[in-house]
Amino acid sequence: MDRALDRLLPSASAWPETLHRAIRHSLFAGGKRLRPILCLAAAEAVGGEWERVLEPACGLEMIHTYSLIHDDLPALDDDALRRGKPACHVAFGEAMAILAGDALLTRGLGVLASYPEEEIYAPVRARAVAAVADAIGTAGMIGGQVADLEAEKAEAHTPDAVLGIHENKTGRLIRAALAVGGLLSFASSEDLGRLDAYGRAVGLAFQIKDDLLDVESDAAALGKASGKDAARGKATFPAVFGVERSRALLAEAVGEALEATGRLPRKGGRLPEVARFVAERRS
Amino acid sequence: MDRALDRLLPSASAWPETLHRAIRHSLFAGGKRLRPILCLAAAEAVGGEWERVLEPACGLEMIHTYSLIHDDLPALDDDALRRGKPACHVAFGEAMAILAGDALLTRGLGVLASYPEEEIYAPVRARAVAAVADAIGTAGMIGGQVADLEAEKAEAHTPDAVLGIHENKTGRLIRAALAVGGLLSFASSEDLGRLDAYGRAVGLAFQIKDDLLDVESDAAALGKASGKDAARGKATFPAVFGVERSRALLAEAVGEALEATGRLPRKGGRLPEVARFVAERRS
Repeated sequence: MDRALDRLLPSASAWPETLHRAIRHSLFAGGKRLRPILCLAAAEAVGGEWERVLEPACGLEMIHTYSLIHDDLPALDDDALRRGKPACHVAFGEAMAILAGDALLTRGLGVLASYPEEEIYAPVRARAVAAVADAIGTAGMIGGQVADLEAEKAEAHTPDAVLGIHENKTGRLIRAALAVGGLLSFASSEDLGRLDAYGRAVGLAFQIKDDLLDVESDAAALGKASGKDAARGKATFPAVFGVERSRALLAEAVGEALEATGRLPRKGGRLPEVARFVAERRS
Repeated sequence: MDRALDRLLPSASAWPETLHRAIRHSLFAGGKRLRPILCLAAAEAVGGEWERVLEPACGLEMIHTYSLIHDDLPALDDDALRRGKPACHVAFGEAMAILAGDALLTRGLGVLASYPEEEIYAPVRARAVAAVADAIGTAGMIGGQVADLEAEKAEAHTPDAVLGIHENKTGRLIRAALAVGGLLSFASSEDLGRLDAYGRAVGLAFQIKDDLLDVESDAAALGKASGKDAARGKATFPAVFGVERSRALLAEAVGEALEATGRLPRKGGRLPEVARFVAERRS
C-alpha cells in the first residue's frame, strides 16, 4: 500500500518541494490504512482481485488524509498532534496545510477516476467516483464535520446527534471504501448491499472504539492528545452513553458486521478479521 | 448557467444550512463564469452541443470558486473582499470557508465524473476528470498558489517567475476548461491541440488583464481591493514588465488566441468573441 501511494504521488523533491513534503509528512505518518484495506478486502470478498483496486484504494487513503489535515487546522479542531507527529499545520504552517489537504483531495478523486485504466472499467469507475464524492460531500463527511463543530457549542448531546455526526463524519467514507472495492469488482447489487451493511456496522464500531480510546488511553499509546473530546465538549459515545454502554454498543456493532460477512461469498474473506481488528486495536 | 449550478447543489435550507449558505454566497456572487463559458464555446467550436457539457462546465465553475475561497483565507492571501462582497471567511468564518471550499472542489470533480450520464461518454468523462485533476493539482493550480505565496518573500521577480506562476495558478484550469469541452464532444486530437493553444493564449491574456486592472482600477469597479498586488510584493506582469509592455503582451496574447481559433472548425465559433471580452473587460 505504501509503495503504491509513493508511486502515485510526486516525490518530496518535485516542485513545489515544501508542498510535497507537507503531503508526505501526513500521508506517511503511520496511518492504519483502514479504508484502503477495507476496499481491497471487499474486492476479494466478492471474487475480485485486490491488485485491480490497489490504486483506487490509495485514492481513498489520500482523501482520508486530506480530511485529517483540514480537521486539525486551528480554525477547526486545532489539534497539534496527529499519529504521534506534529500535525501538518504545526510542521509546515497553516497555508501549506490547507493546500496539502486540497492537493490530496484532488489527487485522491483523480486517482479514483483514472484506475484501473482498462476501458471495461470506465462505467463502474465513474460510479465509484460519484459514490465517493457523495460520501465526502456536504450531505456526508463535510456535513458531519460541520455538525461536529456546531455540536461543541451545544449544552448537551442527544444519542441521535452523536449517531448522526459519526454516520456522516466517519461512516460514509468507510462505506464508500467498501462500495469502491465492490463496484470495481463488478459485484452484484445484492453483494453491494451486504458490503454496505458490513460497512455501516464496522464504521460504527470504529467510531465507538475511537471515542473509547480517547477516554481510556494516554497520548503516548494514541499518537495524539487523549481526553480532548471531553475537555472540548465533543459529542462522543462515552459522553452520551457512558463507557459501559459504549462498550456494549461496540460489541453489538462488531456482531452485526460479522453477520453481514456471513451472507457474502467466501464468508467475506478477510472482512471478519478487519472487523475484529477495529474493535480490539489499542491506537 | 446559474440555473444549472443551482440545480446541481443542495438548496440553502438543506442540512447543514450554514455550509450551503456559505457555498452559495461565493458561487452566486456575480462571477464572470469565464471557465464554463470557455467549455461550452469549445464544445460548439468542434461541432458538439453545448447542452451536453453544461453540467461538467458547472463543475469547473465550482472548482474555480473553491480556489477563490481558499486563496482569500487569512493564512493565504487574506482578502476581505471578493466580487464586491465580503469574502467567504469574512461572512461565515474561517472554518466554514475552508469546508465550503472543500465541498465545492469535491462536488465539482464529482459532477465532472457523473455527466453527461450516457454510457458512451464513460471513457472521455474519465479522461476529462483526470485532465482537470492534473490541471488543479500540485504541478498545476495548487503548485502555482504555493509559488505565488513564496514569491511574496522574494526581493525581486523575474519574467520567468511571473510567467510560471500565472501558467500554473490561472492558466492550467482555463486550458482544462477547453479540454473538457473538446473531450466530451469527441474532438480530434488536432482540434484538442488547437483548443489548447487558444487556451494558453487566452489564459495569459486573462492574467495580464487581471494584473493591469489591479493597477488601473478602483475597488468599486473591481469588486475587490485594488493596488493590493503591489503593496504585497506580488509577482505581477506590471511589476516585472511595466504597464506599457504588459499592454503590448496582452495584445500579443489576444492575437495568438484569435490565430488559434482560425484553425478550428467554424472559425472557433464564439471563442474569438470570448478572447476579445477577456482583453476588454473592466472588472
